[in-house]
Amino acid sequence: MKNIAISIGDINGIGVQIALISHEKIKKLCNPIYIINQTILNQASKLLNIKIPNDFNIYNIDAEFSITPSTITKESGKHSYDSFKTAVDLAKEKKVDALTTLPIHKKAWELAGIKYVGHTDMLRDYFKKEAIMMLGCDKMYVALYTEHIPLHKVPDQIEKKRLTQFMLDFYNSTQYENIAVLGLNPHAGDDGVLGDEERVINAAIKEANSQIGKEIFIGSIVPDIAFTPYNRERFKVYIAMYHDQGLAALKALYFDEGINVSLNLPIIRTSVDHGTAFDIAYSNTSPSNTSYINAIKTAIRLADEQS
Amino acid sequence: MKNIAISIGDINGIGVQIALISHEKIKKLCNPIYIINQTILNQASKLLNIKIPNDFNIYNIDAEFSITPSTITKESGKHSYDSFKTAVDLAKEKKVDALTTLPIHKKAWELAGIKYVGHTDMLRDYFKKEAIMMLGCDKMYVALYTEHIPLHKVPDQIEKKRLTQFMLDFYNSTQYENIAVLGLNPHAGDDGVLGDEERVINAAIKEANSQIGKEIFIGSIVPDIAFTPYNRERFKVYIAMYHDQGLAALKALYFDEGINVSLNLPIIRTSVDHGTAFDIAYSNTSPSNTSYINAIKTAIRLADEQS
Repeated sequence: MKNIAISIGDINGIGVQIALISHEKIKKLCNPIYIINQTILNQASKLLNIKIPNDFNIYNIDAEFSITPSTITKESGKHSYDSFKTAVDLAKEKKVDALTTLPIHKKAWELAGIKYVGHTDMLRDYFKKEAIMMLGCDKMYVALYTEHIPLHKVPDQIEKKRLTQFMLDFYNSTQYENIAVLGLNPHAGDDGVLGDEERVINAAIKEANSQIGKEIFIGSIVPDIAFTPYNRERFKVYIAMYHDQGLAALKALYFDEGINVSLNLPIIRTSVDHGTAFDIAYSNTSPSNTSYINAIKTAIRLADEQS
Repeated sequence: MKNIAISIGDINGIGVQIALISHEKIKKLCNPIYIINQTILNQASKLLNIKIPNDFNIYNIDAEFSITPSTITKESGKHSYDSFKTAVDLAKEKKVDALTTLPIHKKAWELAGIKYVGHTDMLRDYFKKEAIMMLGCDKMYVALYTEHIPLHKVPDQIEKKRLTQFMLDFYNSTQYENIAVLGLNPHAGDDGVLGDEERVINAAIKEANSQIGKEIFIGSIVPDIAFTPYNRERFKVYIAMYHDQGLAALKALYFDEGINVSLNLPIIRTSVDHGTAFDIAYSNTSPSNTSYINAIKTAIRLADEQS
C-alpha cells in the first residue's frame, strides 16, 4: 500500500473532522500519515466528541495554542502551513508516495506571515516549477491558467508565450487530448467588439498545436456556453483563463465529487476541492467527505501510475 | 390574446427558422407579428425549404440584399437592427403588448454602423433608463450588473452608488426576495487577500437592504460556490457582477430552457438566451426552440400581469 501524507488544513475548520470520520475507510486504501500536532489533535477530538482511532498514525509538528472553532487566527495559519510544508518535505524526500491536502484559510496564512496565497503557489516556489492547478472529477476537469489573483489582474496575464508554455506543460503532464480553451471576454470577444485578448489566446492555441503536431487544443471557446450539455459531450477537459470562469460551472455540476490536482511537479499532490467551511465547523452538521475520499483515491492512482 | 412583436434577429443565423417552425405553436398562445422584410422572408423560406404559413403575419421593413447563411454582413446587421427598432417602436406606441427578440450578431451591427453592442444597450439609450438584463428560467434567474463589456473593464464598474441603485431597481421591478449577490474576486476576495471590491459590494448590499427596510440582498457570496446544489436550495435569484460569472453556470445547468428578460423599462421585452448559431444555420440540424417558446410565454405572462 502507498504511504500518503495528509496535511490537516486549518484546525479551526472542518479538515480534522473529515480526517477523523474517514479514517476507517482511508486505511483500507493506503497508509495515511496525518501531519498534526498531537495536543491539537487531542483538543479537536474532545471538541468534536470523536475518539482518535488507535491506528491514526500522526507525524507530530510543533505547536502550542488552543483551537478556536470557525475563527481566523495567526496560530491556526502557522499550524496549517507547517503541516503542509512537512507533507511536501516528506514527499520530496520520497518518505511518502504522495500527499493529500485538507483546506487551509488564506487569511490565516497571511496573518501568520506566510507569503503564499495558497498551496499551489507555495509548491510553485518550492520546486521552482510552474505547477498547474486542475480541478474536477472523472466527468470533467478544469485546469486554471490563472488562479488566486484579483480579477482585475487577470487580463494582463494573457500572454502568448506564457499561455503556450502552460498548454504544452499541461499536455505533457496529462496526455489529455481534445482540450477546450476558453476565451477571456463575454462571447469570446465577439470578433473583437467585447475585448481582444482572444487574439492572443488563439495565437497560443495555434502555436501549442503546431509544436505538438496535433490539434490538441480547441478554441477560443465562448465561456458562457462552454459547459452546456452539448459542449460537455464534446469536451471533458477545459482550460479556464481564471478561477471563477471554470470553477463556478464545475461546482454547479459536480460539487461534492470534485478534487484538486497539482500537475507539472516532481511530487504528487491532490486536494479536496472545498474550503474550511467555518459555517459548519465543530457543529452538529457533519461535512461531506466525498471530495476527500476522491482526492486520496486519485493520489493513490497517480502514485501507482508512476511506480 | 396579446399582440407580440417578434424581431427576427440576424437573417444569416437561426432566428427565422425558429420563427417559422414554431409558428403553429405560437399562434395558439398570442398574435405574433413578425418584423421582417417580405422578400428576405421569401428567400429564407426557399433556402430552408420551409413553406411560409398563410397566417404568418409580418410587419414589412425595407431591405434589399441576399441572405448569405452563417456570414457576418453589414446588410444583415442593418436588417436585424431595423427589425428590432421597429418592434421597440410598436411596443412604445402600445401597438403591441410586448416584444420578443431573436438573436442578432453584434459584429454585424458594428459593420452596419450601429452604435450599440446589443439589444439591452439600445433599450437603455432609447428609453434613457437603466435597463436590467436578467437571464434564466423558473428554477434560477441571474441578473447581470455588467453585461457586454470586456472583462478588463468590469472591476472599475463596481461602485457603491451605482450598485445600490441597480439593486433597488431590480427589487422594484421584480419584488424578488432572498437575492444572492456575488462577489467579484476568487473566494469573494478571501478577506481582502485576493482583491477588495467586495468591500464596495458589501457596503452596497447594506445600503440597499437598509433603504428597503428588509434583508433582501445577501452576500457577497463566493462566486465559484454560488451555484452548488446547496446554494441553489438557498437561492433562486442571483446578481452577478459580470456576464460569464453568472451565465456559465446558468447555461451549464439550464441551457435549453433559459430566456432573457429586460427589466426596469416602460415596455416588456423578452428574448431567447442563445446566439445566431452560425454553425447550424440553414443546415440539416434543426435548432431547439425551447428558449424561444419560453420567451414568448414569459412575454405574455408579464403583459397579462400589467393589464
